[in-house]
Amino acid sequence: MTARFDALCIGNAIVDIISTAEDDFLLQQSLVKGSMRLIDEAEAERLYGLLGATQEISGGSAGNTAAGIASFGAKAAYFGKVRNDHLGGRFGHDIRATGVHFATPPASDGPTTARCMILVTPDAERTMNTYLGACLGLGPKDMDPEVIKASSVTYMEGYLWDPPAAKAAFREAAKIAHSAGRKVALTLSDSFCVDRWRSEFLDLMRSGTVDIVFANTAEVKSLYETSDFASALDQLRKDVDLGVVTRSELGAVVVNGASTIEAPAFPVPQLVDTTGAGDLFAAGFLAGYARGHAHDVSLRLGALAAAEVISHVGARPLVNLGQLAAQNGLVV
Amino acid sequence: MTARFDALCIGNAIVDIISTAEDDFLLQQSLVKGSMRLIDEAEAERLYGLLGATQEISGGSAGNTAAGIASFGAKAAYFGKVRNDHLGGRFGHDIRATGVHFATPPASDGPTTARCMILVTPDAERTMNTYLGACLGLGPKDMDPEVIKASSVTYMEGYLWDPPAAKAAFREAAKIAHSAGRKVALTLSDSFCVDRWRSEFLDLMRSGTVDIVFANTAEVKSLYETSDFASALDQLRKDVDLGVVTRSELGAVVVNGASTIEAPAFPVPQLVDTTGAGDLFAAGFLAGYARGHAHDVSLRLGALAAAEVISHVGARPLVNLGQLAAQNGLVV
Repeated sequence: MTARFDALCIGNAIVDIISTAEDDFLLQQSLVKGSMRLIDEAEAERLYGLLGATQEISGGSAGNTAAGIASFGAKAAYFGKVRNDHLGGRFGHDIRATGVHFATPPASDGPTTARCMILVTPDAERTMNTYLGACLGLGPKDMDPEVIKASSVTYMEGYLWDPPAAKAAFREAAKIAHSAGRKVALTLSDSFCVDRWRSEFLDLMRSGTVDIVFANTAEVKSLYETSDFASALDQLRKDVDLGVVTRSELGAVVVNGASTIEAPAFPVPQLVDTTGAGDLFAAGFLAGYARGHAHDVSLRLGALAAAEVISHVGARPLVNLGQLAAQNGLVV
Repeated sequence: MTARFDALCIGNAIVDIISTAEDDFLLQQSLVKGSMRLIDEAEAERLYGLLGATQEISGGSAGNTAAGIASFGAKAAYFGKVRNDHLGGRFGHDIRATGVHFATPPASDGPTTARCMILVTPDAERTMNTYLGACLGLGPKDMDPEVIKASSVTYMEGYLWDPPAAKAAFREAAKIAHSAGRKVALTLSDSFCVDRWRSEFLDLMRSGTVDIVFANTAEVKSLYETSDFASALDQLRKDVDLGVVTRSELGAVVVNGASTIEAPAFPVPQLVDTTGAGDLFAAGFLAGYARGHAHDVSLRLGALAAAEVISHVGARPLVNLGQLAAQNGLVV
């Protein structure tokens, strides 16, 4: 069956509240730069009161990836849970406005729509504080089988391991995808997330529940509890059919059985905010992969999208990535 | 009495919903590029449904100016009306987070917090669609006399002429300011706003209700219904004590009795979004003026702040303007 969607992305549906912060503020608040931590509503209120002026932009890791895929002109769907409140309305508007199919019913009661307070330090690094809220309501019943079957790849966040009901949703989606002969991808999301769920992630890979793994250097090292990147990469090669690892300014690498394919990063004129770099890399790679491009082309598409998103505030592209690809001699 | 605030800014308290749009979209929607139009809630909902992905950032012309003054390290206060809803909370948080004194009580019922849908076209021009909502509740009772008396300059938007009760608030604030020996400033806001309120604006100037007028080229030409800038400037000179006119990349000019002081614009590496250019120019000029600087210095401070704000999305500064001024050899 021809796929109706190049990729279905499933994740925590979150609106980002972005503020700049000095390093001293992170120290005072005992925040670990570059990480994502989960917070409750009381801590969310407390921290918000300490933030400088903010920008509010729809986010969520897999949501950013879906928006990126659509911006390339490829077809994307998204599953994620918001509430029927102001932020939930904005999340739905923004993801649909980029052309993504999004039909997960919003919760009509319970916790409010999730938000992530992102502190961007002068070095463009981001430190994230996530209140999961309505995301806790995402469960197996939200895994629309028709959309999963119609998607070449079902791509899911490691962050889905944080809200308990989403784990079952993840496994259900993977089962449906494989039953339709589709591929299942997992991003490891964050090295602290890997720390929380290492054995379960390895089990997903070794059991064949996932076919493709996205990670950055820190995450793959954390997964295998090693400081040696080459060793981590060789273990990844054995554990999953396709491993895609981003290395910041060093570019990215695919491991696929015995073969290793590398591609350089795109130069970034001005590094402003690294939020979304991994999400948009995955968008470019998935768009290329789902359309049947060679891995080196998909890597370059990923690198291009990552370079765009880190050159401005916010984790979703500000330009049409399909046009940007064409300007750089790439076709999706 | 020494002033506690360099400037008090009074205006419509608005959260901006920013989206990019093609010129064709403006044509289809019969929107006049570069203008601000008032819309009702139904039109706000309709238009929102047609927008692409959005960013939400606190705005409001005089609110942007207050944030800019505070960013320069000068002292600013703000009066404006929000409701006690999500957007109202964000507006209050953001303006206070920049260091502005803001204590206007939010409305606990009635229309929701105002929002302005801003369409940014590829030429960086902005087209604004404003739902005034809770701003309609701003009235004379909100004009805290202690704050007005404590402010060197009370600066008000021409846009305040749109919500009916705010006119009376404007006149009340001007009366209190003058009774305390303070200055009153008006920005003409928008050439269409001038069209709506020309005779009232001229009356405010000729009656001495305002001492300082801010305008751009289009607004001052509209005020005097002439296409000849030199002629408009000479009429402005006669009608107000201090006229401050911005001329985009041509810089800005002050007319003060017989004297004329000009200053060039600052170069802008990348013009991204012109929203807030006039607001931030006023911020720099007022910070300099209130601190007793010569007009040429105040003009340069204004030009610097305008250059910063048009180099990124959103109408409030993303950097500390005091530091930026110091880097450019200017002191506030």
